[in-house]
Amino acid sequence: MIGGLPAGLDALVWDGEGAAPGDEELRGVEFFCLPYLRHAAAVPVIRRLPSLKVVQTLTAGMDDVLPYVPEGVVACNARGLHDASTAELAVTLILASLRGVPRFVRLQDEGRWSQEFHDSLADRRVLIVGYGSIGRALAARLEAFECEVVKVARRARPEERVHGVGELAELLPAADVVVLLTPLTPESRQLVDAGFLARMKDGALLVNVARGPVVDTAALLAELSAGRLRAALDVTDPEPLPADHPLWHAPGVLITPHVGGPSSAFLPRAKRVLREQILRFEQGEPLSSGH
Amino acid sequence: MIGGLPAGLDALVWDGEGAAPGDEELRGVEFFCLPYLRHAAAVPVIRRLPSLKVVQTLTAGMDDVLPYVPEGVVACNARGLHDASTAELAVTLILASLRGVPRFVRLQDEGRWSQEFHDSLADRRVLIVGYGSIGRALAARLEAFECEVVKVARRARPEERVHGVGELAELLPAADVVVLLTPLTPESRQLVDAGFLARMKDGALLVNVARGPVVDTAALLAELSAGRLRAALDVTDPEPLPADHPLWHAPGVLITPHVGGPSSAFLPRAKRVLREQILRFEQGEPLSSGH
Repeated sequence: MIGGLPAGLDALVWDGEGAAPGDEELRGVEFFCLPYLRHAAAVPVIRRLPSLKVVQTLTAGMDDVLPYVPEGVVACNARGLHDASTAELAVTLILASLRGVPRFVRLQDEGRWSQEFHDSLADRRVLIVGYGSIGRALAARLEAFECEVVKVARRARPEERVHGVGELAELLPAADVVVLLTPLTPESRQLVDAGFLARMKDGALLVNVARGPVVDTAALLAELSAGRLRAALDVTDPEPLPADHPLWHAPGVLITPHVGGPSSAFLPRAKRVLREQILRFEQGEPLSSGH
Repeated sequence: MIGGLPAGLDALVWDGEGAAPGDEELRGVEFFCLPYLRHAAAVPVIRRLPSLKVVQTLTAGMDDVLPYVPEGVVACNARGLHDASTAELAVTLILASLRGVPRFVRLQDEGRWSQEFHDSLADRRVLIVGYGSIGRALAARLEAFECEVVKVARRARPEERVHGVGELAELLPAADVVVLLTPLTPESRQLVDAGFLARMKDGALLVNVARGPVVDTAALLAELSAGRLRAALDVTDPEPLPADHPLWHAPGVLITPHVGGPSSAFLPRAKRVLREQILRFEQGEPLSSGH
């Protein structure tokens, strides 16, 4: 990356591990890109950058960063960067849950061969809640699976056959799989509460690849413990999930540790996104952001 | 199903459990459809049907049935019936293996949150060995995943960009994922031997949703134990895999108990295929078979 910087731009590299650079070094930073895997450690550094013009994350969500961004500073998420990896993980979680992979892993550990019927994604109805850039990538991946995809976003977009969030209550009872892809905002926080879950059909699968607090964990736990719903969660609330949290061992739940983004798909796409943003910055063009 | 039979056709139903019907009852059977899940128990009944004209399986493979079919009797596999379910399981096994689902299931059982990078299907090259009806269904499902799909069949079909099996040796070293979909024939038996596996690249994933004996189990075990290859197997040799078989606990292997076909996708498609075949039989039209 650094090698590809336009002449006249200087780079200071800190990977988020160990102490941040000193104030002397930080003084001239105008464009700050937060390190991906040590994002949380780097957020407070935003307040130490007197020349700051742009904060760039390598994450899709910015909920944790926005409170730190001073007025007048442009805040950009990594729009499109995680589409491939996160949409792919959503399909992974849907297929693994429906086709019984967690059960077969446990049977494998016991050396037990037990042929049995499980659900197929074919013939199922999948409801995508939060239909944006990642949602489009997910819908494209689901298209060939002989399932039906229904889309919901904040506002209805009839030209894309996207329903508005107001229609959610009537769409939920007909969905076999509900995938959460909303950013975390005041409106989406605890969107999936006891009432939302109660409208889901018996045996339906809830997939969360958005943010943990979009779901009311206690309400979900109650439905899982009753054996009425199933869930596949890449994000949780709290996160990381403490070792003694009952969600780990609830029936019908598959948990992955927030790996929607971290995959081999990350690096080539991160380089592409960051290079494009830096070139726009250097040319004085408007930056790309979807937050 | 039975209700939908053309007038003039009579049905005798035996689900394969318990004793088969007596010779008196079997005497008039012209069209014999083997019960799907108790297929093996029903195969010997073929020899007790003096009026037999058609043997119909509800499986894709017929390797175990053909030796029982008398000369002059038409043998039909269930062409297309398992395309959706088996292609879907192949994607499930690829995604679960690459994205680390078996590891995350085991971490979940320990209550451990461990964010880490795994492979993505995006940017990978997938080689389909045995490109027929299920292969086409698999390629369609892989299309949107930003991966490359390379196809191999017995004979090259340049118009479909399908390579001939003779090119396999040079295609193997460039594949990240190799999916086996060949029927079990004298040529495909042990096709995946030590030499085949040795040509696969380090860390590549072998997926078998075909038949167990297509793979030399001992040769695969050696590569898995060395940590050089990974595998996801829905079929094994021997099958079912005995409880004490070392394959269960080899590193980097995910085993499902031959569930490519058995899923909720089965029943509606089985009814459709069987109805069409019976109607063709009754009209004296040629039956459909892909074996």
